[in-house]
Amino acid sequence: MTCELGDPPVRNVKIIPWGKTVAIPDGENLLQAIAEAEIPLRAACGGEGACGRCRVLLKEGRVRQGLSGGLTGEELAAGFILACQSVPVEDVVIEIPESSLVDLRRVVLSGSGRDISLSGPLYRKIKVELRPPSLDDPKDDLGRLLDELRFQLGDGRINAGLGVVRTLPGILRESGWVVNVSLAEAGGEIYIEQVEQVSESKYYGLAVDIGTTTIAACLADLESGRQAAVRGAYNKQSVYGEDVISRIIYAGEHKDGLEELQGAVLGTINGLVSGMLDDLHISSGDVKVAVCAGNTTMTHLFLGLDPAYIRLEPYVPAANNPPPGRAGEIGLKINPGAWTHCLPGISSYIGGDITAGVLVTGMAEAEEIALFIDVGTNGEMVLGNREWLVACSCSAGPAFEGNGIRYGMPAAEGAIERVFISEKGFRVECRTVGNAPPSGICGSGLIDCLACFYREGVIDRAGKFIFKPENRRFREGDEGPEFILAGGLNNREITISETEIKNLIRSKAAVFAGIRSMLKTVGLPVEAIERIYLAGGFGRFLNIRQAVATGMLPDLPEDRYAYLGNSSLKGAVQVLLSKSARRKLEELSGKVTYLELAAGKTFYDEFISALFLPHTDLNLFPSVNFK
Amino acid sequence: MTCELGDPPVRNVKIIPWGKTVAIPDGENLLQAIAEAEIPLRAACGGEGACGRCRVLLKEGRVRQGLSGGLTGEELAAGFILACQSVPVEDVVIEIPESSLVDLRRVVLSGSGRDISLSGPLYRKIKVELRPPSLDDPKDDLGRLLDELRFQLGDGRINAGLGVVRTLPGILRESGWVVNVSLAEAGGEIYIEQVEQVSESKYYGLAVDIGTTTIAACLADLESGRQAAVRGAYNKQSVYGEDVISRIIYAGEHKDGLEELQGAVLGTINGLVSGMLDDLHISSGDVKVAVCAGNTTMTHLFLGLDPAYIRLEPYVPAANNPPPGRAGEIGLKINPGAWTHCLPGISSYIGGDITAGVLVTGMAEAEEIALFIDVGTNGEMVLGNREWLVACSCSAGPAFEGNGIRYGMPAAEGAIERVFISEKGFRVECRTVGNAPPSGICGSGLIDCLACFYREGVIDRAGKFIFKPENRRFREGDEGPEFILAGGLNNREITISETEIKNLIRSKAAVFAGIRSMLKTVGLPVEAIERIYLAGGFGRFLNIRQAVATGMLPDLPEDRYAYLGNSSLKGAVQVLLSKSARRKLEELSGKVTYLELAAGKTFYDEFISALFLPHTDLNLFPSVNFK
Repeated sequence: MTCELGDPPVRNVKIIPWGKTVAIPDGENLLQAIAEAEIPLRAACGGEGACGRCRVLLKEGRVRQGLSGGLTGEELAAGFILACQSVPVEDVVIEIPESSLVDLRRVVLSGSGRDISLSGPLYRKIKVELRPPSLDDPKDDLGRLLDELRFQLGDGRINAGLGVVRTLPGILRESGWVVNVSLAEAGGEIYIEQVEQVSESKYYGLAVDIGTTTIAACLADLESGRQAAVRGAYNKQSVYGEDVISRIIYAGEHKDGLEELQGAVLGTINGLVSGMLDDLHISSGDVKVAVCAGNTTMTHLFLGLDPAYIRLEPYVPAANNPPPGRAGEIGLKINPGAWTHCLPGISSYIGGDITAGVLVTGMAEAEEIALFIDVGTNGEMVLGNREWLVACSCSAGPAFEGNGIRYGMPAAEGAIERVFISEKGFRVECRTVGNAPPSGICGSGLIDCLACFYREGVIDRAGKFIFKPENRRFREGDEGPEFILAGGLNNREITISETEIKNLIRSKAAVFAGIRSMLKTVGLPVEAIERIYLAGGFGRFLNIRQAVATGMLPDLPEDRYAYLGNSSLKGAVQVLLSKSARRKLEELSGKVTYLELAAGKTFYDEFISALFLPHTDLNLFPSVNFK
Repeated sequence: MTCELGDPPVRNVKIIPWGKTVAIPDGENLLQAIAEAEIPLRAACGGEGACGRCRVLLKEGRVRQGLSGGLTGEELAAGFILACQSVPVEDVVIEIPESSLVDLRRVVLSGSGRDISLSGPLYRKIKVELRPPSLDDPKDDLGRLLDELRFQLGDGRINAGLGVVRTLPGILRESGWVVNVSLAEAGGEIYIEQVEQVSESKYYGLAVDIGTTTIAACLADLESGRQAAVRGAYNKQSVYGEDVISRIIYAGEHKDGLEELQGAVLGTINGLVSGMLDDLHISSGDVKVAVCAGNTTMTHLFLGLDPAYIRLEPYVPAANNPPPGRAGEIGLKINPGAWTHCLPGISSYIGGDITAGVLVTGMAEAEEIALFIDVGTNGEMVLGNREWLVACSCSAGPAFEGNGIRYGMPAAEGAIERVFISEKGFRVECRTVGNAPPSGICGSGLIDCLACFYREGVIDRAGKFIFKPENRRFREGDEGPEFILAGGLNNREITISETEIKNLIRSKAAVFAGIRSMLKTVGLPVEAIERIYLAGGFGRFLNIRQAVATGMLPDLPEDRYAYLGNSSLKGAVQVLLSKSARRKLEELSGKVTYLELAAGKTFYDEFISALFLPHTDLNLFPSVNFK
């Protein structure tokens, strides 16, 4: 008996306002269709139907729906569905609201834009003159070249592959024994990558900050050190989950999940690179080396390493310092032979993005004690000076990034970024990104809320609402009491609930408790911190005084605070171009002691003490003015 | 206008006695057809139409002929043609005479057959137990493994590729933190090649002697050191030329010539390997490492390195010590990731086969002064002891291998291997290999001729015939006076001419002059040599007393001479299995001083003095009995 099979049915999904139409096999959901169309949809929970972030409006056609977690009754009535839970049963048209999108403006490309001084790039072309062989000096070609290089470089271990040796006799003789030799450093060794006729050809290096949400890339001229181009994009992995945990789960629970996630991040980076190459009229073969900085999970997903055990106690990554690989073996579309380095991390939750940041601050060589804070999807901190360094990580960030906050969103168009509350909460003014009608609230707005709510007596020290019946902004929502911040689009009011305020307090408490735990380990008071470096997208929009008022950041003079910009990308560029940066990074990453907060009791005690506004111990926040 | 193209015409070539028929495109010659049929034809000059070695009998059909160098009038009349110069114009049938074939019995597989004691093979599997991670000890998987290996091995530089790191987390946990780790040594570093569940699986290493004419290969069990199989075959490169010079020329003068030659030697080795694997029921993936020993040209052709400058003054190879490569990148059909090592040579004419031989003798660690001689297609010699080593090479061999000797041939069926001459040359008896009717004369027969001719007064000290009109064995041939040794096949008499005798004298003179030149460099007399090691196929059949009588070898007591067998293969096996052998080889190859005979006047003077039988200075040969 044979079985006749026709073509499997496909569903056409038209996506507005893009006007893109993609065809997906029957049974695939809208999230997969949107990923296929390469539209940067947010999907915080990784397709579980729980977070409501991937809400889209069904305009035409029918879908088979699963869960609808995170959608309000009004949204359901208006035709919103969850992309991850909707399988088209016929051709459909959907609209993606702005609030469901990752916003490119969140990509921090750099803080200062200074070019890094070139001093020993990871790949360099040098001119070598050899004495031609004679009967008295008949040394073999490779031996002759190696002798001269050892003399010039003073280094012992220089490697050449068979590919180079194959072309060597011809090139040396055609060029009259004067050649360009390209040398790459990898894993502490020097590799002869290419021997060619002397020429003016320029070679480039790629530096990449692989963020969980956004990716920034920079092409640098390896001869001058000039940063020829820099670009950013959302990480295409976002459709598989908004934070590292949901992506690790996706990688583990889906067949070929790891490959999909690796493909997504590679697709993002390759897209950025090809755009820059086109603009600069550079061939991909001339990009000879790459340096990537990312958190430990991002590094694992980029290299195709199994991240499963990063999220399971005792939180062990496959490799904190993965070996360099060739671009071709990884799938990075530059010269396939280009060595691709990932900056070393310290632990599962202190990755190469953080060591890059510490490198950029220079704190590992300074006498003064400094604190480095990167609050992104996680909160990562490093404290110390040239004598010692201690690091910790707390899952603080998600609330500030909008996770666990119904109307939380990135600092995109329409996000409430500043909140001014006065008259005991009767008067509320909001400023949105782009002055657009408010569609949600981002991290800096949430910090403002917390600070102002407390100052104006809207909440008590524990974050509980102090109800005033005459204030109509208080109301009872689906999940308990909430406070109306503003009227929004689609007649949706932007609110913040008591539960969400408690979430925010837990987040700010985690950051401060982490800082105090590190200080306790070395027996120092908060005042010992002479400098605080803020990194990443969160630091950029943060009102430091407000953050101090909530008790998240130490109550220290504002001039001790400095904003670093994208220190992960900057660190990657430094490592690409400077031998001394590489030496410093190696030293510092060997020096950092990771403090596992889950391991002792200190963090827990500190956390409990920090669950008040600004803190149980008010002496820690002398400058905070309590009316 | 369009042009109709049919299939290009092909010619069928039937080859007897094999009964093989191959189809070749119009325009290709019979040598190409025979190569296609994988029949081991000799082609000394590499297809130049000069040497006459590739003579075949045209039985049916017509060919377009070019040159006919090396064919006698009788042979031409009998229908012999040169395969390299004959392009079929229709389907043909040809017969290949025995004397045109390379004989497999010439492959020396080993001298003694002793197994090498295993002490640190290049690839080894060890059992590693790791302490599982905990919150107090959350080191990453790779770091944990590297720490333990550094502790066990005491070595600092251990490398792991991304492939290993990718599977590491899963394997470690599935196996309960007790695993087999396979380690490879390459270029002075240790590589983690594989981490897997503990198992009894056996891994193998391949050792190969890549000779110009023949190739011998051995598979060794990497756990026990047992040599599981050993095999030999002719080098399929033979059809491109019999000696290294003609192959270098072929590689340079033909498009893709180098690729063809590389393909031929790889084809030979892959054939041997696959035969052994089939016999032993081993998968090619279980052969994890390879070590090859060959002369410098063979090593270049095997690795695809340009050999052009080996034959041009000042005789400089691409690499004496080429870097190891992965089998897959070279084309060797074992595990594609297997590191493939070629033993280091000293110069263009002292290759890895010779350093292997010196390793096997142990002379580089002994107090006594020893001489190592390998007379193959070239004559290569090393003199010295643990204090010093000097090496030279002279193009001595070809005459003894049959080159420049019309009836010269390898020690194959029908080759005259012993010649007994008495009664002043009136009585001549010949013994042939396999007692077959004589079809030519091989090296040992030629040495006998030279010694007996002189002893019986057939020739004078300079190699000139002393004519005796009553001896009908003297006659005038096409190329001057000659001496009939025996009647042969096809009514062809096996002769040796005065010109050929002069050739042989030049060859023996070159060997002795090389030995004397080395001795002079260190200021020692011949008697200082306490041991002489003879290597390779030539040494196996040599009558040492006769060789001394001609003045080729030093006049020393016969018990100082030792025959080594295939010391190239033995050395490769030692390097595969023994760390101390690798250390010794590295030391000795750094210690050998290469004496370029062409560079000074010493060799020339010694050569001129040695152009007499046995020598100008008879005091050097006191034991030679001159009637």
